[in-house]
Amino acid sequence: MTKKILITGTSVRSELLNPLVEAGYTVENPTHLLTEGELKDILKNASAYLLGGDELATRNVISAAKELKIIAFLGMGYQSFIDAAAAKEFGIAVTNTPGTLSNSVAEFTVGLLLSSTRRLFLYASEYAAGRTGGEEKQRDLPSLHVGIIGLGGIGTRIAEILRNGFGSKVSYYSRTRKPHEEQRLDVSYLPFEQLNKQVDVLVVMTPLSEETKGLIGQTQISSFKKGMILINTARAEIVDPAALLAGLETGQIGYAAFDGLYEKPNESMEKLKALIPAKLMVTGHIASLTHEARDGMAKKAVRSILNILKTGRDEYIVNGL
Amino acid sequence: MTKKILITGTSVRSELLNPLVEAGYTVENPTHLLTEGELKDILKNASAYLLGGDELATRNVISAAKELKIIAFLGMGYQSFIDAAAAKEFGIAVTNTPGTLSNSVAEFTVGLLLSSTRRLFLYASEYAAGRTGGEEKQRDLPSLHVGIIGLGGIGTRIAEILRNGFGSKVSYYSRTRKPHEEQRLDVSYLPFEQLNKQVDVLVVMTPLSEETKGLIGQTQISSFKKGMILINTARAEIVDPAALLAGLETGQIGYAAFDGLYEKPNESMEKLKALIPAKLMVTGHIASLTHEARDGMAKKAVRSILNILKTGRDEYIVNGL
Repeated sequence: MTKKILITGTSVRSELLNPLVEAGYTVENPTHLLTEGELKDILKNASAYLLGGDELATRNVISAAKELKIIAFLGMGYQSFIDAAAAKEFGIAVTNTPGTLSNSVAEFTVGLLLSSTRRLFLYASEYAAGRTGGEEKQRDLPSLHVGIIGLGGIGTRIAEILRNGFGSKVSYYSRTRKPHEEQRLDVSYLPFEQLNKQVDVLVVMTPLSEETKGLIGQTQISSFKKGMILINTARAEIVDPAALLAGLETGQIGYAAFDGLYEKPNESMEKLKALIPAKLMVTGHIASLTHEARDGMAKKAVRSILNILKTGRDEYIVNGL
Repeated sequence: MTKKILITGTSVRSELLNPLVEAGYTVENPTHLLTEGELKDILKNASAYLLGGDELATRNVISAAKELKIIAFLGMGYQSFIDAAAAKEFGIAVTNTPGTLSNSVAEFTVGLLLSSTRRLFLYASEYAAGRTGGEEKQRDLPSLHVGIIGLGGIGTRIAEILRNGFGSKVSYYSRTRKPHEEQRLDVSYLPFEQLNKQVDVLVVMTPLSEETKGLIGQTQISSFKKGMILINTARAEIVDPAALLAGLETGQIGYAAFDGLYEKPNESMEKLKALIPAKLMVTGHIASLTHEARDGMAKKAVRSILNILKTGRDEYIVNGL
C-alpha cells in the first residue's frame, strides 16, 4: 500500500507537514507549477493531495488518481481549482480551510478604515511629495457609526475590534440575523437600505456572487450620508465601478479604500486610479497575507488529511461526501 | 464692571462659546494674529482670556490686564505661550486642557501601527505607482508583542485598544509604575532596556524634554529585535536621527512611522525622506486633528473660565494659584 502525499505550491512551511511524516507518510512538495501530465503521474499512487498551487484538479486528473482519498484545498474558493463533483463521483473528499483568515483580514480592514477616517495614506503621500499643511480635521471612531455588510467570521471579528477596542457604534446587515452576536457585542441589525442611509463608515464584507455583484450601486450610493467612508476588503465587483466613480467625484463618498480593484477592464478604471491618493487608496488584494493566516490554513488542511486518512470523516468536507 | 472675554485663534466653534454668553459675558474673537499692542488694549478690560492663537501672553501683556482673572490655554504646552509666573504674581490663574486629545492621538497611533505592521502605506503607494506583486507576508497583531514608552493618558488608551480590540501582548515602560493599569488591562511593566530588547513593535509616547531627547539612540536601536517596527506619535527628537537612519538602512528597524519629522535641520533628514515609502511613513503632526479633540479642548477651557469667574477655583490651574 502506497503512503504518499502530494503538496503543491510554495506557501506551506515544511515543518507544518511533520504530523504527516510522523503518521508514516512520504511527503512530496514539488515547487514548480505542475503540468496536467505531471500531476496525473504523481497522483497515481498518492493517498492525499494538499492543493496549494495554481494547478487545476480536473476530472481527467481526478479519474486517474486511483488511491486518492482527499483533496485538501488551501483556502476557501476551491470551486475555481477542483472539479468537486467528479471527486465525489470517485469517492474523494474535498475540504477547504474556513475561518483561518478572519483575524488577518479583519485587522487589515480596520487598518484601511483608520487610513481612511484619519486620511493616513493621503497625508503620508502628501508628505512624501513634499507637500505639507492644508490637513483638515477628521472624526474620532467613538463618534462614528460603522455599518458592516456581512457578519460572517471576518465581519464578526471587525465588529469585535471596533466595539471592544475603539468604542464605535456598530450596525450590520446580513441575510440571517445573529441575535447572539447582537447581544454579545452590542451591535444592531439594520435592513440593507437603512444601513446604507445611516452609517458614517460602510464596510463591505460579503462574498462575491451573482446576487452580490453590483450590490452597492447608484441607488445605494445616492442614499449615503454626504462624505461617508466606504471600505471594501471583499471583492471590488460588489460595488458598481461607475457608481463608485460618480460617488467619489461628487463627494457623496468622502473617501474609499479597496483591497484590490476590478479584475475585468471597465470604463471607470483609469478615472478611479486618478483619484488616488486624494479620495481613494487601493492595496493589491493582500488582506490575508500574514504568516499566521497562511500557517493556520496549512495546519487545518493537514488536520483534514489526517482525519480522512484515519477515519474517513472530517468537518470541512465541501463536496457532500 | 466689565464683562468681556477674549478668545483668540480660529479653532473654537462659536456655538461652544454659548455658555459664556448665557452667563452674561460679551465674547470677542478676533481671527487675525494680534500684535502685542492690540492684545494689551483688548485685555485692559477683559475678565477672561482663552488663548487659542499663536500670540504670546508676555509679562508686559499680563501686567496691563488689570481685571483679568484667568488665561485658559487651549492645549497642553502653555509654557511656550504664557509667562505663568508673571500671571501668578498678578493673581491670574493659568489653566490648560489635559486629556482631551488622548483618544484622537491613540487612534491615530494605532492607525500608523497597522499601516506599518501590514505595510498599508507601502503597498498602497506601490499600487498608486502602478507596481503590484512582490508583497510579503506580514504578522498578525495577536502574535506581536507591543511595547509602549510612556503610560499617560494617550499611552493608556493605546494599550486599551491593543489589548481589548486586537489581543496583542502589551508591555510598557514608564518612570512610575501603574499597578492599577497593569491589572485592569493585563499589561506588564518592563525596565527600559528590556522593553527595547523584547518587543516586536515599539510605540514612543512620552513628552519631549531634555531627559527624553535622543532617548532612543544607537545603543537602544542595536538592541532591538531584527526587523522590529518603531512608531513615534510623540516628538521625533526623542529618537536620534542618525541612529534611526542607520537602523532603517541595516534592517534592524523593519519599518517606522512618525507623525512629524525633526524640526531642526540635521544631516540624516534627506536620507530618511528617501526611505519613504519603502521603510518609513511620515504624517504632518496631525494625530490630534479631529473635531472631537478640538471641541473637547474648547469645552474644557470654557468650563475653566466659568469656574474661575464664578468661584475663583478650577481643577486645571497650572501656575500654582
